[in-house]
Amino acid sequence: MLQLPDQSRVQKTLESIKNIVEQKLFPLEPEFLKAGGCFKKIGPELYEIRRQVKKENLWAPFFSKEWGGMGLSLTEFALVSEGLGRSPLGHFTFGCQAPDVGNMELIHQFGTEQQKQTYLLPLAQGEIRSCFAMTEKDNSGANPTQLQSYAEQKGDHFEINGHKWFTSGAEGSSFCIAMILTNKEANIRERASMILVPCENPGFIIKRNIPVMGHVGSEMMSHAEVEFKNCKVPVENLLGGQGQGFLLAQERLGPGRVHHCMRWIGLATRAFDLMCERAVNRQIKPDQSLGQNPLIQTWIAECKAEIEASRLMVLQTAHIIENHGQKEAKAYISMIKFKCAQMLQQVLDKAIQVHGAMGVSDDTVLAYLYREERASRIYDGPDEVHKISLAKHILRQRNSNKSTKEKGLS
Amino acid sequence: MLQLPDQSRVQKTLESIKNIVEQKLFPLEPEFLKAGGCFKKIGPELYEIRRQVKKENLWAPFFSKEWGGMGLSLTEFALVSEGLGRSPLGHFTFGCQAPDVGNMELIHQFGTEQQKQTYLLPLAQGEIRSCFAMTEKDNSGANPTQLQSYAEQKGDHFEINGHKWFTSGAEGSSFCIAMILTNKEANIRERASMILVPCENPGFIIKRNIPVMGHVGSEMMSHAEVEFKNCKVPVENLLGGQGQGFLLAQERLGPGRVHHCMRWIGLATRAFDLMCERAVNRQIKPDQSLGQNPLIQTWIAECKAEIEASRLMVLQTAHIIENHGQKEAKAYISMIKFKCAQMLQQVLDKAIQVHGAMGVSDDTVLAYLYREERASRIYDGPDEVHKISLAKHILRQRNSNKSTKEKGLS
Amino acid sequence: MLQLPDQSRVQKTLESIKNIVEQKLFPLEPEFLKAGGCFKKIGPELYEIRRQVKKENLWAPFFSKEWGGMGLSLTEFALVSEGLGRSPLGHFTFGCQAPDVGNMELIHQFGTEQQKQTYLLPLAQGEIRSCFAMTEKDNSGANPTQLQSYAEQKGDHFEINGHKWFTSGAEGSSFCIAMILTNKEANIRERASMILVPCENPGFIIKRNIPVMGHVGSEMMSHAEVEFKNCKVPVENLLGGQGQGFLLAQERLGPGRVHHCMRWIGLATRAFDLMCERAVNRQIKPDQSLGQNPLIQTWIAECKAEIEASRLMVLQTAHIIENHGQKEAKAYISMIKFKCAQMLQQVLDKAIQVHGAMGVSDDTVLAYLYREERASRIYDGPDEVHKISLAKHILRQRNSNKSTKEKGLS
Amino acid sequence: MLQLPDQSRVQKTLESIKNIVEQKLFPLEPEFLKAGGCFKKIGPELYEIRRQVKKENLWAPFFSKEWGGMGLSLTEFALVSEGLGRSPLGHFTFGCQAPDVGNMELIHQFGTEQQKQTYLLPLAQGEIRSCFAMTEKDNSGANPTQLQSYAEQKGDHFEINGHKWFTSGAEGSSFCIAMILTNKEANIRERASMILVPCENPGFIIKRNIPVMGHVGSEMMSHAEVEFKNCKVPVENLLGGQGQGFLLAQERLGPGRVHHCMRWIGLATRAFDLMCERAVNRQIKPDQSLGQNPLIQTWIAECKAEIEASRLMVLQTAHIIENHGQKEAKAYISMIKFKCAQMLQQVLDKAIQVHGAMGVSDDTVLAYLYREERASRIYDGPDEVHKISLAKHILRQRNSNKSTKEKGLS
Repeated sequence: MLQLPDQSRVQKTLESIKNIVEQKLFPLEPEFLKAGGCFKKIGPELYEIRRQVKKENLWAPFFSKEWGGMGLSLTEFALVSEGLGRSPLGHFTFGCQAPDVGNMELIHQFGTEQQKQTYLLPLAQGEIRSCFAMTEKDNSGANPTQLQSYAEQKGDHFEINGHKWFTSGAEGSSFCIAMILTNKEANIRERASMILVPCENPGFIIKRNIPVMGHVGSEMMSHAEVEFKNCKVPVENLLGGQGQGFLLAQERLGPGRVHHCMRWIGLATRAFDLMCERAVNRQIKPDQSLGQNPLIQTWIAECKAEIEASRLMVLQTAHIIENHGQKEAKAYISMIKFKCAQMLQQVLDKAIQVHGAMGVSDDTVLAYLYREERASRIYDGPDEVHKISLAKHILRQRNSNKSTKEKGLS
Repeated sequence: MLQLPDQSRVQKTLESIKNIVEQKLFPLEPEFLKAGGCFKKIGPELYEIRRQVKKENLWAPFFSKEWGGMGLSLTEFALVSEGLGRSPLGHFTFGCQAPDVGNMELIHQFGTEQQKQTYLLPLAQGEIRSCFAMTEKDNSGANPTQLQSYAEQKGDHFEINGHKWFTSGAEGSSFCIAMILTNKEANIRERASMILVPCENPGFIIKRNIPVMGHVGSEMMSHAEVEFKNCKVPVENLLGGQGQGFLLAQERLGPGRVHHCMRWIGLATRAFDLMCERAVNRQIKPDQSLGQNPLIQTWIAECKAEIEASRLMVLQTAHIIENHGQKEAKAYISMIKFKCAQMLQQVLDKAIQVHGAMGVSDDTVLAYLYREERASRIYDGPDEVHKISLAKHILRQRNSNKSTKEKGLS
Repeated sequence: MLQLPDQSRVQKTLESIKNIVEQKLFPLEPEFLKAGGCFKKIGPELYEIRRQVKKENLWAPFFSKEWGGMGLSLTEFALVSEGLGRSPLGHFTFGCQAPDVGNMELIHQFGTEQQKQTYLLPLAQGEIRSCFAMTEKDNSGANPTQLQSYAEQKGDHFEINGHKWFTSGAEGSSFCIAMILTNKEANIRERASMILVPCENPGFIIKRNIPVMGHVGSEMMSHAEVEFKNCKVPVENLLGGQGQGFLLAQERLGPGRVHHCMRWIGLATRAFDLMCERAVNRQIKPDQSLGQNPLIQTWIAECKAEIEASRLMVLQTAHIIENHGQKEAKAYISMIKFKCAQMLQQVLDKAIQVHGAMGVSDDTVLAYLYREERASRIYDGPDEVHKISLAKHILRQRNSNKSTKEKGLS
Repeated sequence: MLQLPDQSRVQKTLESIKNIVEQKLFPLEPEFLKAGGCFKKIGPELYEIRRQVKKENLWAPFFSKEWGGMGLSLTEFALVSEGLGRSPLGHFTFGCQAPDVGNMELIHQFGTEQQKQTYLLPLAQGEIRSCFAMTEKDNSGANPTQLQSYAEQKGDHFEINGHKWFTSGAEGSSFCIAMILTNKEANIRERASMILVPCENPGFIIKRNIPVMGHVGSEMMSHAEVEFKNCKVPVENLLGGQGQGFLLAQERLGPGRVHHCMRWIGLATRAFDLMCERAVNRQIKPDQSLGQNPLIQTWIAECKAEIEASRLMVLQTAHIIENHGQKEAKAYISMIKFKCAQMLQQVLDKAIQVHGAMGVSDDTVLAYLYREERASRIYDGPDEVHKISLAKHILRQRNSNKSTKEKGLS
């Protein structure tokens, strides 16, 4: 059964985070938003706050203490991620932004000592950034067996050729973890490997930053189309064993999902707060606020219920992963993806509607979230893929029950 | 934070209940359904199972041991109620059907010794049934201040006049707890009292059983229109203090909501199981089952997620009530009402659709639940009333924050 | 382009119908509803009104004048069907209830002179009733190629064996049009034929009336499970040519869909009227009606828009069928099925909710419609089947455009 | 009854428009989109096409021939607007973009000869642009009686003070039609007037272009916050009579709504086409396209039905306005606003989801439309305001029926 984390252990942390997010990050947002979501514009201030975060020992909350993190458990970090999620600047400021946080975990868990020194050390300290190249434009990301990028082993190096896109944050990254076929003949789930590719490699070519929702973006806030062209990397750059690409990806999955979903819940809570504030303050007539309209009240109640329901599901998921492992949490890991992404979009939509014209302006954070987080229903596998996968999982169990019964075993 | 009940304490109970529900009650359902939901048809068998339930010490799980119950905690009973909810016959068979369970609680908590001997004793043992008269046809039940039924005190007795409806199970009941104005001049929430009225009282007149969804029903499965006509009852029949009607109703509310919602979750789970079974077994083409259709899979996944989300919310609510009191749980008690009722209807609708023509037939339990539980979005206050009440609760807090700020206090 | 029917031609008819429906049929409904939807209870009154209808020359509005009908065009009848649909008693009273109306059309169009004299004549005059047997329990009705009932030709007669269900109104019918395989080896769409089977035939066995939504029903309001057991009928009872079953079914389709959908729109309008009436009359507080609540207003507006949109689509469909044939109307015929069925359910649901407890009672017609018309999303092919079929139709066109382009032809 | 426009009269026009839109405008879109929706980037090409449009006599389709337009009827222009709506560049290219088209109508209908020469002449020829200032930030636009901008008459001129926002396209406009209070004491609907204000007036101050969905925009694609500061304009600049502001706004309403809604339907059709194309072309597995998935098929069917339903409603509305006047069309004018805006958002959302990651990129027009047209549910009055207004209209009729009956008059 669900045993939610002892919040008292992180209570003080959560309060410190709340203070920094509200007092330091919220004031930076207007500049960030006006530029359509551009970190560069607020870079110096942001790095200054990062230094403060480190000084207060709030850096990399999820990462091991040994490497400079706070060493929180998954459920504890879930609560932290919720707090950080209230600002689009939160996770970066506290050293736990995607995809770096996942990359750190991978190298930490599966990397060689040399890989850790070369890649993990500066990454964990926030001195460099990294990216993760998996999705390919012409192949359904929903079906990983369709990957085509291929690394041919030639002596002591791989030669990679392939075409990836939506390699987020590639611009300015120091290295990339790339999911690449290394054996086209192997079992379907053992064909791919993860390979560490330095971005300065001449065979690692950023063809363009894909314009997304009106902006090509830059650095952290960009999504590159990347060509691997006769890209040579030494075999030592293999991360984990050969053919273990999907295995490693699987490892990223559960905790990564919890991070994302709690971030979305943080975002949704922010939007909900803005919606309530607007409802209270907007006068429709003298002595009558928008919040007195039963239609608006209905929206507020429905949003609240969906946020709470989503939150309990994610915390439950974190608990199961932590205590019983990812395999046990499989159904939950699917459910929170589509449930939270849908909830987020619904809350954002209502919050905008309550704001009227101001809702589509960049005078609040809502319009940014509305367009930026439309992708939440798509990345990490479209919601539909997760729904179908969950249903198959459920029906397989029933089917096997049936078969068992037919065989007269029960 | 949420600490869900130690399920191990009730694990064995849950299994015993599962066995009885599946092996004894499921087989009685076809007869029950064919009669449009009629307990009479299956009366003898049902009472036989009740005896077995008592023998196995599974009777009245939520009620105090002293009075013959199992003495489970609210969270433990929540799990039990889920298990019983899988059959529409569950709660009655185990002595915890509405409105008796609520009436038992009220008399146990607020009754005089004599009231307990007279009314509670036979009720707790399942020898008699009772009803609860609150809703009035011409007055919005959503606004309790609009009650009109009035008890005039004349010496040592009350004389009640009024018109109630949807007094469920009045037919065959031994007594009724009636919510009646006793002081029209008092503060709004102190105008009504609860009064114990024996149903054999000549002033307690069942005008008709209201036909509901095609059936007038009978006994437990009926909804009476009741007239109180110069109905005289001794003042000793006052339950709790005069003017405490709403206070007592409030006490019923939280636990009652948890009972109902967990029952709905049990029902939804039953429907979900039938839907999955149908998806697995219905062949569309040779070698292709309905369950292989991604559209059906999507429905299954969405239903599963909504059931789980609702379940976590109700358990969380039970936990808060148990550990922090009803007042703390106020928002949750509102949320689970509309969330669960909506979820139930959605799951039933999809389950029927997956069954095709069979879904609207009484060859499964689905059509019965579909029409019977449409009322779940209406009774206990329409969903809309709860949404509005929740939103007001939320906005009041924000408003007071605002006022506080305006006064410069924070 | 759409040219809606010149309503003036039927204006007087529509008014006469309105009068009879409101003044004669509405008053019969309470009795009808109290019995869970039973024609028997109100039989004598109903047949009396039928006589009046015939006297006023309003009988069988859609059927040819030669056979005693009004000879209206499809679009004109659409408007009439809407008017009749406001009461569940409407179509029967005016001699155009399903499945008789479809059966009349089939025999009229494809029957031999002898078939017309034997079956059509008494049917058109309302002296007998008929049924239509197509759906089979164990085979997806959505895929007509899966039919299994089979008629073996033995000399001058067929011997039919098979198992049908949801043969509506079989009880009390004089004959049945049955869709039966006559050649299992033919092309998929030429395997079945329609055969006229007298119900007194000892091989035509009503196994049971399937209980639906709590009632086994009777006569017109029943849905039989029918066994054909060595059921011998002369080969002259073939309707249309051998192997033309699907062709004939297709002919029924378009106009039948328009009839049904306009009936649903009539029903929805009735529910909408009740909802508005309730909103206006239900006082929440002194001087405040339910209809002043913006949430209720929103429902009313949304329902109104959906009813109007559905209505325009059906009239457009009728127009296309009438002027350009069923083939041209294919997409529309699919669309109105799922659009109108969904609209109907939505309007009924909201109308019930606005009525509160009264909404689930049989004190209004709403609860009856709610449970009876749940089947509208299932019969005539589940909505999902129509959606999928429409999409395939759309994508096939695009695909062929693509192929054409690829071949360099455009 | 609905008599849709004789499409044959505009058939050739529609084909010419289709050609220009597809062959000239579609190719300009990528550049336009990459800049986040910026006309400047493609200015020269766009003006070149405008010249061609004029040469082909396709300019200003809705406007009177006398002033250089095509003189189409409202229903004819509805069809044209649908065709133009397929590209976000359509309406501007053909000289019928908002708010110019509305402003032209107003001056044409209510302007003095001098106003026509000064303002209408160059505007109708596309030599200048104009804007329309109504919405005020701090006052609910939904309630026009709350306007605060005020023009004090001082001798032969007005002195305007006030604060408007979302004055679209103010940057680069030559003049503005401003809705301003001229008499605070008059009847509520006679307090405001429309005044022509040259934008070079030093009292007309563009405070900023409001950043919307990530862009401050420019010129046509901008939304200004405008301050009127002691802004003096001669009294001759009054448009229509004093106090006629709402009356004139009302005149704009019906036709303007039809324009907008048909533009949305054009947009939705474009998105629908892209969705279908993607479904056909995206391979999930070898020999299996996305379009073969029943879930995607379901979306396609639902979108198609909603587009068609919306389209019929708008054409019906145009027909009623044209033949019976705006007053008769009141309910329809409300309905199409919220129905079409909702439909558009739903279609865009599904189209994006079918495109996966590409859907949120600017490699298609979808992401632009998704964020730009979120405002469609807000501008011209939020959908909720229209729903409430429609419901009041409906209930008022019922209420008056009721009153009439009560008075015994019917």
